[in-house]
Amino acid sequence: MNERPRHGRLTDYNTPLIEQRADPYICCYDGKYYFTASVPAYDRVVLRCADSISALADAPEKTLWVKHTNGEMSRHIWAPELHLIDGEWYIYFAASMEEDIWRLRPYVLKCVGGDPMKDEWVECGMMKRSDDDIYSFEAFSLDATTFECKGKRYFVWAEKVSVGIQISNLYIAQMESPTKLGTAQVLLTTPDYDWERVGIWVNEGPGVLKHDGKIFLTYSASSTGPEYCVGMLSIDESDDLLDPREWKKAKKPVLCTDEEKGFFGPGHNNFTKLPDGTDVCSFHARTYPEVVGDPLYDPNRHAFVMKIVYDEKGEPVFDYKNCFR
Amino acid sequence: MNERPRHGRLTDYNTPLIEQRADPYICCYDGKYYFTASVPAYDRVVLRCADSISALADAPEKTLWVKHTNGEMSRHIWAPELHLIDGEWYIYFAASMEEDIWRLRPYVLKCVGGDPMKDEWVECGMMKRSDDDIYSFEAFSLDATTFECKGKRYFVWAEKVSVGIQISNLYIAQMESPTKLGTAQVLLTTPDYDWERVGIWVNEGPGVLKHDGKIFLTYSASSTGPEYCVGMLSIDESDDLLDPREWKKAKKPVLCTDEEKGFFGPGHNNFTKLPDGTDVCSFHARTYPEVVGDPLYDPNRHAFVMKIVYDEKGEPVFDYKNCFR
Repeated sequence: MNERPRHGRLTDYNTPLIEQRADPYICCYDGKYYFTASVPAYDRVVLRCADSISALADAPEKTLWVKHTNGEMSRHIWAPELHLIDGEWYIYFAASMEEDIWRLRPYVLKCVGGDPMKDEWVECGMMKRSDDDIYSFEAFSLDATTFECKGKRYFVWAEKVSVGIQISNLYIAQMESPTKLGTAQVLLTTPDYDWERVGIWVNEGPGVLKHDGKIFLTYSASSTGPEYCVGMLSIDESDDLLDPREWKKAKKPVLCTDEEKGFFGPGHNNFTKLPDGTDVCSFHARTYPEVVGDPLYDPNRHAFVMKIVYDEKGEPVFDYKNCFR
Repeated sequence: MNERPRHGRLTDYNTPLIEQRADPYICCYDGKYYFTASVPAYDRVVLRCADSISALADAPEKTLWVKHTNGEMSRHIWAPELHLIDGEWYIYFAASMEEDIWRLRPYVLKCVGGDPMKDEWVECGMMKRSDDDIYSFEAFSLDATTFECKGKRYFVWAEKVSVGIQISNLYIAQMESPTKLGTAQVLLTTPDYDWERVGIWVNEGPGVLKHDGKIFLTYSASSTGPEYCVGMLSIDESDDLLDPREWKKAKKPVLCTDEEKGFFGPGHNNFTKLPDGTDVCSFHARTYPEVVGDPLYDPNRHAFVMKIVYDEKGEPVFDYKNCFR
């Protein structure tokens, strides 16, 4: 499927790092960069590894895991993320099933060895909620990420509520283990503003950036066409991360469609660092506005990377001119 | 039903103003005080009128409207509130139907004359959401209140989300007319903290207090037994009331069970003023902790009134010692 990536007008900025990889995720461990993403067929978890972010573009891609033919994890394999937790490799991803294609839930894979590119991966099943939580993962749930702060590990994910056309919110909980939450969910953000409510009311795709004692949590908002954009929460590392009222929310998106620069529907970003410590944001976008059919099945969400700079208040600045390859 | 109100130990403080009236609501117009509330049979809308709050205790109660035998507004007639809007009287209340007893929705009555105690009341049907809103009043919705700020009128109500045992949130929207919203809902508060999650995760029963340029919005949290309590949001009148991130939320309840003073499960409060300008909070509570059966059908939620004082920061203080009759 989709052998020929389609491009709109290419500018100085909008040449992708990697084509046709949505929900891009890059991490760096021991000097090696790893890249995973949703593939257009939504049928597998892939991983590539290289010595630099730029070299990821031509690095061979390995399929770590393929969807089942039916039952759990048989459809919509979305947004994998690779995390090293207490010395062991995990991949978090979302999946539904052929029998119920919108029954998205978060699942976990674990690597049985120390090399995520070479060693075997085994299934750990669905992410488990805490014993006192009757709400989490009851409905459409996806885009899980995890991060550590002051010795505690947290899980952030998107989950839908309401009847009819549902609303996608972001939730946070502390983790008891890599495969189970230890606290009940709290609501981090719901689509409050008009720019989060274009098409479907959506908050999803959380990504975590730490800088100078603060945590910035970006997320994607609205439907997945050109209206898709990136919003941001922030909190001091010393605050209670499970108190949603401690998180501040930016009233405007931090990254959105820029027709002139040729980026359409940017979103689902994540963060890593260059060897010199520079923060880098990976994200996907299209290079053209006119999506034919359901944007979800348009394969041309390409992976881009952008250097982050900080303003005088210490807040990250997302500028397409800082994209690189 | 429930001819003999049951009391626990009565203290100096906890003698009710009016017995067996839950969700008490008092307002004052032209020197007259009006009182309405949920009656234990949940079958009607009642109103009484007197020259003072204390005199409401012995004022005759008039039935303004009785539930239908089936269909809309035939069951669970709850939490009426009387409001004078642009010179006309309205009552907002919640109701379900015999055929679907938990299908609570907000309804509106209108008085065809100028005297709410004497003139006829007619039905205006269910409160209507705005044309661009597909979410409001789709699920269990109740406890609506309305207030004005800087020439705009707002509607605040509780509505449930999620699957299984649902979560009750508070929403706000601007009103286009007394019977229709003019903007899509925004989420004001969800049960974030442990004290809002005892039994069922609930935020409901909003009440609005204005003081010195600020708006305080109290609400009730948790299940309706002794765990029921009152939380509070606040915002400057000059802020954007439809931006939920402008509202501050108190991290602790402002009113909760006090065994020593003999108040159990206080909640569903509202505000009015004494002739000298002193703010008064009406609320319900039980005088004993041990509820037999479903707390919702225990009739002994009695109506109390309490004078509000303000602390050095200008925030209201809720102290049982300031209850009066």
